[in-house]
Parts: sequence; structure tokens; C-alpha cells
Amino acid sequence: MHRTKVKVAEDALDANTTIAAANRADFDRQGVRVVNFMSAPGAGKTTLLERVLGQVDARVGVLEGDVQGSADADRLSALHLPVVQLNTDPGFGGECHLDANMVRSALGDLPLGEIDLLVIENVGNLVCPAEFRVGEDARVMVSAVTEGEDKPLKYPLMFRTCELVLVNKVDLLEHLDFDLDRFLYNLEAVHPGVEHMLVSARTGEGTEAFRDWLGAAARATPAATA
Amino acid sequence: MHRTKVKVAEDALDANTTIAAANRADFDRQGVRVVNFMSAPGAGKTTLLERVLGQVDARVGVLEGDVQGSADADRLSALHLPVVQLNTDPGFGGECHLDANMVRSALGDLPLGEIDLLVIENVGNLVCPAEFRVGEDARVMVSAVTEGEDKPLKYPLMFRTCELVLVNKVDLLEHLDFDLDRFLYNLEAVHPGVEHMLVSARTGEGTEAFRDWLGAAARATPAATA
Repeated sequence: MHRTKVKVAEDALDANTTIAAANRADFDRQGVRVVNFMSAPGAGKTTLLERVLGQVDARVGVLEGDVQGSADADRLSALHLPVVQLNTDPGFGGECHLDANMVRSALGDLPLGEIDLLVIENVGNLVCPAEFRVGEDARVMVSAVTEGEDKPLKYPLMFRTCELVLVNKVDLLEHLDFDLDRFLYNLEAVHPGVEHMLVSARTGEGTEAFRDWLGAAARATPAATA
Repeated sequence: MHRTKVKVAEDALDANTTIAAANRADFDRQGVRVVNFMSAPGAGKTTLLERVLGQVDARVGVLEGDVQGSADADRLSALHLPVVQLNTDPGFGGECHLDANMVRSALGDLPLGEIDLLVIENVGNLVCPAEFRVGEDARVMVSAVTEGEDKPLKYPLMFRTCELVLVNKVDLLEHLDFDLDRFLYNLEAVHPGVEHMLVSARTGEGTEAFRDWLGAAARATPAATA
């Protein structure tokens, strides 16, 4: 069973790559830059977006991926941005990630002609979301200091394939045994030179840098790969 | 593509159920009770096991599931218990969960005749591990208060299919905006009546109850279902 399953998974990844390229072509045609935003459950993705999206110097839309419910989309709707919720639970008792086809199915509901930047908030998971391109220009991941220093070593693909790592919940550092130097050493080991920012979604510390990064991403020339 | 993938996933789940039953028969024959231990990344599974496994009133073995590396198994080896590491990265760029066949592949390395209780520490993920039975008698999940109150609503299958929920990192409650009553309300909404314990792996608070629960699980009569 295991061998068969792996083969099927590879076919699924091939199909995913094809559809991701089609998404990418559509985004490029409309002049929309796309950020795939990922983390473990509860790392603070939505709270970070609540904090910065209203202040980004660009027209922003959001695609919210969740297994079930629309709690995060409801929170972000308060920012008066176009927000579309995508639930993954019709498939497989709940898919643990967004794939290119799911994103494609939502494109018709997004006002692509009226936005410069689309932020896709992926399902909270450090494994499979990293394996599925959805047509994004850049990947941003959030790693909360409450999760421990070992996460880059345990989930290397996620940390290796992103352009920016937000180290969140730094307001709690004084109450934790978390060794920030060790975390950054582990991060550098799996993804040498990757950009990182220390932030607190709760206090706002460091989040201006993320806001500006998103603004720059919205104005960037498209990357060469899908 | 999506429809095809779902069909394949259902076939894989059928095969998984068959193999889980075979695992279960082997465990029963050897008189071993099995706990499937799950959580999001960084919720504190390994630290909780470090805290209690040496004091459980039973002979305990551990199967450690990780995408990559043996950091957690190395930590638990210090307890002088039989520990076997299972890495999921040969498949699919890293499987996000353990399935029954992966567990089966490790049974030969486990001294089943010499233990009463096997704790299977699953891959850190709140979605797919809940979908794959591995032959366990009981499921225990850890939800850290740093992850927020909304997790039961966002990952309902995980919270719904476990026998015990450990609410971890309660030593941090005074530094968080976490509303414990709201979390417990959400938990009750998705899994009415499920047992829960408030614990801190870091300070040890509440962990004696988990230690005793594991001891009782080791002496329990096998449940009727695989």
C-alpha cells in the first residue's frame, strides 16, 4: 500500500505543478502578486494579517484556507478587504493543505482586477502545504517562539522553501526557555541566508517591517518560476 | 484532479483500516495496550513524555514518528525505555502523519513481549493523523494554550476522535490573552464530555494525573474496536 500511495502522490504533485502554472499565468495577466502564508496551527497567521493588512501600501485581497469554518475570514472581513474562504473538508475528511486546484476553484470569487497583492493563508500545518505550489510569487512562514527551537530541523522543507520567516510571539520570550540564537542557528542550517523578522502580532512589535515587506512584494516584478 | 485524489485517499483509508486491525491483533496477542499521542507541532508532546514516562506504573515502550531526524527519540532514550524512531520522509517528500503500515513496519523493532504500554508519538499535525488509525486502544491529544481557543472548531476531527485532551503550557496562562473557559466551551461543542487535564510539561503541574491515566490505560481491557 505504501509504495502505491507514494506513486499516486507523485502524480498528484505533477498535476499540481501544471495547475499552479496556470494560476500563475492568470495572476501575472492581472498584475497580481501572490504570497503563500503558512505556519503550524496557532502560530498567529491571522492575528498578524489583522495587524498589518489594513496598512499595506497596495490593494490587498485574502484567500483563507481552513479545514472547516470561516472564523478567520470573518475576522479579516473587518478590515474591509476582499476575503474569500476556502474549506478543505469536502475531500478526504479534511485536506491538510491548499493545493493549486483548490486555489484555482476560488479564483472566480476573487476580484483579481482590483487588487495588487493576494495573500493566501494556508491550512495550519508544517508538512504538506510546503509540498504544494499554488502559483505564488513568494512564501512567508510564521514560527512562534512557543513552538520550540527545533522546528526547522523537524520540518525542514517548510523552512527551506520560504522567502521570509516571521518569528512570532517574541513578547513571550521572557517567560519561555526558548533559545533564540539556537533557533536562528537551526534556521540557518536548513535555509542559509533566509530573511527573518522578529515580531509580535499581539503587541505589534516588529510588524511594520512585515507590512513594508508585503508592500514591496506587491510592487515586485514577477519571479521567474511558478 | 481533486475528485480522483479523493477516491484514491478513500482507498488508502480502507487499506489503512485493514492494516490497523492486523496491528491491533498483534498488540492484543502480546498484551500490549497502545496510545496514539498527537498534537500540533511544538505543543509539548515529547516534553510531556519526558516528564511522565519514567514514572508510569507499567513497562512502557515508545514509537517516535517524525518527518525527519531522531531528536525526540534521542531525548526519550535518556529514560532507558525501548524507543524506536520512524521517519516519514521517504514518502511524498515527508508524510504528515503515521499510518497503520508505517507502524506495522516498526513492530519488528519493538520488544512487544517486554512492554505493557506502547506510546506512539505521531507527527506534529492537527489534520491527517486523526484520519489514520494505527491499531491504538486510545488517542490522547495535546493542545497548548499558546495556540488559541479556536483550535477545536478549526480542527474538529482531531478533538472529536480522542479519549483525552491535555491542555498544556498552563504555566503561561497569566501572560496570554487565552480564555480557558472559551476553549473548554469550544472543546465541549465538538466533543461533548471528553476528559481533559490542565498540565504544564515545563513545571510538571498536573502531569501526575496524566502519568496515572497512562498506568490505568496499560492495565485496561482491550477496547472492542481497532
